[in-house]
Amino acid sequence: MGRTSDARRKILDAAQSLIELRGYSAPGVAEICKTAGVPKGSFYYFFESKEALALAVLDERWAAQRRDWTRVLTDTTAEPLPRLRRLFEETEAAQLAGQQDCGTVSGCIFGNLSLEISNQTEAVRERLQQIFDAQVDMVEAVIAEALARGELGVTDVREAARSVVAQLEGQVLFAKLYNDARLLGTLWTNCLALLDVHVPEAPAVDA
Amino acid sequence: MGRTSDARRKILDAAQSLIELRGYSAPGVAEICKTAGVPKGSFYYFFESKEALALAVLDERWAAQRRDWTRVLTDTTAEPLPRLRRLFEETEAAQLAGQQDCGTVSGCIFGNLSLEISNQTEAVRERLQQIFDAQVDMVEAVIAEALARGELGVTDVREAARSVVAQLEGQVLFAKLYNDARLLGTLWTNCLALLDVHVPEAPAVDA
Repeated sequence: MGRTSDARRKILDAAQSLIELRGYSAPGVAEICKTAGVPKGSFYYFFESKEALALAVLDERWAAQRRDWTRVLTDTTAEPLPRLRRLFEETEAAQLAGQQDCGTVSGCIFGNLSLEISNQTEAVRERLQQIFDAQVDMVEAVIAEALARGELGVTDVREAARSVVAQLEGQVLFAKLYNDARLLGTLWTNCLALLDVHVPEAPAVDA
Repeated sequence: MGRTSDARRKILDAAQSLIELRGYSAPGVAEICKTAGVPKGSFYYFFESKEALALAVLDERWAAQRRDWTRVLTDTTAEPLPRLRRLFEETEAAQLAGQQDCGTVSGCIFGNLSLEISNQTEAVRERLQQIFDAQVDMVEAVIAEALARGELGVTDVREAARSVVAQLEGQVLFAKLYNDARLLGTLWTNCLALLDVHVPEAPAVDA
């Protein structure tokens, strides 16, 4: 069993990094197996198709990212808006670390595959919808908390949450295109504007 | 020369629709030529590489979109903010028309390729940067006009313009993922928030 699990693990690891860097279509099954150091013949023992592999990659990546988002966004020791701010700061730090590791900002694998293949495979589209639904749910819960504290001017909490996540994805697109994770530094200011925040986290001293 | 130009045109048309629907990596040169009805052997007579074809596709698409954006954003018969609103309305209408034509929202080819391959080919990255720079320039000019009229609260006009385009790309991502061009209906409200607009186009009657 040790060897079997190893081979599956190696295929998943290779696929995660190849798909993150080069998208879904570019790396073929043969290249993924070669990178994994696993015979191509064994691929279909573990995955019934390349699409099934992509779904497994998305599940693993989302499980890890959801842990991070949950840790930050449900941290009851912090007030709601500073939790959102921390989410953006950690996103910027993660993209910056990725840039330093591999020389290029690789962006968000969920956004990448949404634009590359969500209109071509219904299974991947459905999985990505579930992932973004969950992201919007988590942001919406924080916005609802801040709204209950009278800190915001938004009326449609769901749409506000979707707009915050859309802004995040749009700025990550620019960070990838310009290969500059620092562009994400604008996320917090834009979030304050999109949510019509009445009580900025740190009031200006001279106000 | 008639036949030669025809073949190049057919390759470009086939590539535009295949790349828009399925991205850069998925359709190979053989499939593009087959769709174009042109012998594969003649491809390299017109384009030195698939990358060169992608650049030609981007140039043609941007030339067409720039004409549309220029018509809307430099229309001196309209005030600045309504011009931005019209840009979003036309974007939504175009995505809706595309959805009705081919059954699926295909999104923005510039955003699609930014996330799929901007980190893999420097020539494409550079071209896409020029295109988004130009988009931000055009939006920035309108924002500067509105600012001069005292209608906005932004301080960094460039960053505000980039944020408006980022929000556009992020919402187009959602429109593609959820296959619902109507999601773009939120762009104008978000633009008003991002620009801290003091004078909404149509003041509420009961205000």
